[in-house]
Amino acid sequence: MQESGTITAAILVIGDEILSGRTQDTNTSHIARFLGTIGIDLRECRVVPDVEDEIVAALNALRVRYTYVFTTGGIGPTHDDITADAVAKAFGVGIGYHPEAMALMAARYKKPEDFNDMRKRMARIPDTATLIKNSVSAAPGFQIGNVFVMAGVPMVMKAMLEELSSRLERGAIMHVATVEAHLPEGQIAAALAKIQSGHKTASVGSYPFYREDGPGTQLVVRGRNMAEVEAAACEIEVAVRSEGVEPRRI
Amino acid sequence: MQESGTITAAILVIGDEILSGRTQDTNTSHIARFLGTIGIDLRECRVVPDVEDEIVAALNALRVRYTYVFTTGGIGPTHDDITADAVAKAFGVGIGYHPEAMALMAARYKKPEDFNDMRKRMARIPDTATLIKNSVSAAPGFQIGNVFVMAGVPMVMKAMLEELSSRLERGAIMHVATVEAHLPEGQIAAALAKIQSGHKTASVGSYPFYREDGPGTQLVVRGRNMAEVEAAACEIEVAVRSEGVEPRRI
Repeated sequence: MQESGTITAAILVIGDEILSGRTQDTNTSHIARFLGTIGIDLRECRVVPDVEDEIVAALNALRVRYTYVFTTGGIGPTHDDITADAVAKAFGVGIGYHPEAMALMAARYKKPEDFNDMRKRMARIPDTATLIKNSVSAAPGFQIGNVFVMAGVPMVMKAMLEELSSRLERGAIMHVATVEAHLPEGQIAAALAKIQSGHKTASVGSYPFYREDGPGTQLVVRGRNMAEVEAAACEIEVAVRSEGVEPRRI
Repeated sequence: MQESGTITAAILVIGDEILSGRTQDTNTSHIARFLGTIGIDLRECRVVPDVEDEIVAALNALRVRYTYVFTTGGIGPTHDDITADAVAKAFGVGIGYHPEAMALMAARYKKPEDFNDMRKRMARIPDTATLIKNSVSAAPGFQIGNVFVMAGVPMVMKAMLEELSSRLERGAIMHVATVEAHLPEGQIAAALAKIQSGHKTASVGSYPFYREDGPGTQLVVRGRNMAEVEAAACEIEVAVRSEGVEPRRI
């Protein structure tokens, strides 16, 4: 599965609020785009509820399979925030109050009584984990092995992702060329299949859209060999023109 | 895992475009909310790439575990649309041109030559499957066993979901009460934990927000026993008021 030299990742979103439809997840696409900029291939995402066994099972399935796993959600101060305990269980390690996490958090509260027992829960970190600092609201995330545990609140998650990025091995960048055409994809599908089979190192995707300026298709070429991506994109432009439509690079 | 009488579901999103961050998935939250309205519990989501083995493995893991599985994506006319073949493989059945699907699609094209070979790919349906009609763009989805295979384009997916909804067994509706408070969640977390432990049939979730009118927390009670949901929500309102803040039901 894992090509040598390819750095892969999975995302594990933890939270009943995504599964109930209450919250629209946007963390996945943010992390996906970020990983793309540093050459890491996102291969899988899962969303599980705030249920310990589910978190443990999903995390253990993903962490042996991919270079990195990024989790979001479930590290706040309330009773339903059980991610840290679940991660400790998945790794078979203990969990306890982390001195540096306690210090970081204590510094945030002006009155000592505001750093209450529930907030102290956020300083409980699995043994052997290292902290991921949180420039927004102090309570840290953490890294254990190849797993990065982040908050679910998008603003906090973004800050943590930036903070941890220097720890990630980077891969060869994926080059992307996008050709937009006001053509139904079925009209150009045969040409696309031929172009795909002529450029094995690139992947050609076809994504129809329905917009006010009319329906059409975005044709996206992705690959690590820039010359091949560009060659495939040029062939797509030729194929679109041969249908009497002017393509647009976007 | 599966309580007797509870109807459960998983979503399998198929598509490189979600994993690359190119496309923000919104189908999941739409399906999640829809399932909520008919009393079906969404328990898990997965996103996998356009890779046959990945689709087969994920589908086979999910379909034995949940009452229903809904897939989105990968049923268009292009070479990267491989969902129908992968689903046939997962079920160990053959696949071929479905006469009714061919007829539905042929009726859509004015010129017979427009119903080309690539478009005909969309009429390839696994053996034993039944069609899910597509009022937007003709090419149907299908149901096989407890799996519903839908398009990825949101407008088409929504039409298919509406079309298939009469086939779903309905569960007891989940009641939801939401209390919003301009309080950090850490200030009310201890009270929430107590309220949760007093109402075992309901689940109490806490979701912080950062908005222009100031930060705060949405406290969400969900459960099938309306009286218990309401009782827990009232206790939350009392707890918020005791912190000197006026709660708001939303």
